[in-house]
Amino acid sequence: MDLKEAGLCEGISEVIATTRSASRVPNAAPIGILTREDNFFVKLYKGSQTISNVLLKKELAANVTDDAVLFVNAAFATLSANYFSLFHSFPVLKEANSWIIFKCNVIEERRESFLFQLTPIAVEINRQVMRAINRGLNAVVEAAILATRYGIIEDEREKAEMKEMIERYAAIVEKCGGRREKEAMSVLYDIMLL
Amino acid sequence: MDLKEAGLCEGISEVIATTRSASRVPNAAPIGILTREDNFFVKLYKGSQTISNVLLKKELAANVTDDAVLFVNAAFATLSANYFSLFHSFPVLKEANSWIIFKCNVIEERRESFLFQLTPIAVEINRQVMRAINRGLNAVVEAAILATRYGIIEDEREKAEMKEMIERYAAIVEKCGGRREKEAMSVLYDIMLL
Repeated sequence: MDLKEAGLCEGISEVIATTRSASRVPNAAPIGILTREDNFFVKLYKGSQTISNVLLKKELAANVTDDAVLFVNAAFATLSANYFSLFHSFPVLKEANSWIIFKCNVIEERRESFLFQLTPIAVEINRQVMRAINRGLNAVVEAAILATRYGIIEDEREKAEMKEMIERYAAIVEKCGGRREKEAMSVLYDIMLL
Repeated sequence: MDLKEAGLCEGISEVIATTRSASRVPNAAPIGILTREDNFFVKLYKGSQTISNVLLKKELAANVTDDAVLFVNAAFATLSANYFSLFHSFPVLKEANSWIIFKCNVIEERRESFLFQLTPIAVEINRQVMRAINRGLNAVVEAAILATRYGIIEDEREKAEMKEMIERYAAIVEKCGGRREKEAMSVLYDIMLL
């Protein structure tokens, strides 16, 4: 299946994974889906709700979005039930530009992660959003990735360096972002208590 | 005119400006278009071919693309005639996902730049390309911006720091980019002679 139209291109696509637990509680968290010659893979780290749900249900939905606030909320907060809609009882994000539901097969277990091959079983395009490159959106994503590490690092010098890089990204958001990017950065700062 | 469908959203959109000289030679170079409450602005630095052409003809086309190679080539090379097509004799990029032709009015002259207000006069959407966030594409853009400064900086320490940041972006491209992002990075390295 060609998923280009739904937004998955060669390389790693940053999307929001939605999954469900044994008791049907939906969960959302950012993941990166690797597309290589029309094959799809994802590496999931052990210890997350996403990996528990995927190992149990062997399914995940990749929700494509360009909404910086949704991205940051999925990374750091618990999305409430009204963010989700159900497709044949599987949770997807109402606000996603598109989503793809994948069957997940483990192809490798490593010490800290599992590698899955993904097979698309359903795809929906809610709206075709074309967007010129916005450095602010990119900066939110990079800052969010740093922020997930910021909380667990203990070395003070490393923490200071990381904070400096986050501030560099915040300056790009301030200059180049729109309202959603600026709001996302402010959510991120609240979470990090910077 | 609402240019969201053509890819221009709130904040600064990184696009490729095409312009023409008095002798009708087409030129292409990256610019950032600021969208604020359905008003459009661009700051152009003095000394570039783009600003000469815009001051002369009072027009520019904003070409929206997600092609990293096209972006880097427009930044550092001279695009040959076959990259362009003409719309009522004004040059646009054949490979653009969309383009908008703007009338440009100077609203402020500063020491090193002019600020223009832009009024859209024609728009074309060649294809609606939706693409999930790709950190590799973002990294190419950030590296290209650094690379334009790298050539003119003389302070050795500053140059070394800049090189280190470019290498950080190159690692992101290697991990997250597709073929076009990797090719763009290699073009960038060739230009910088790193």
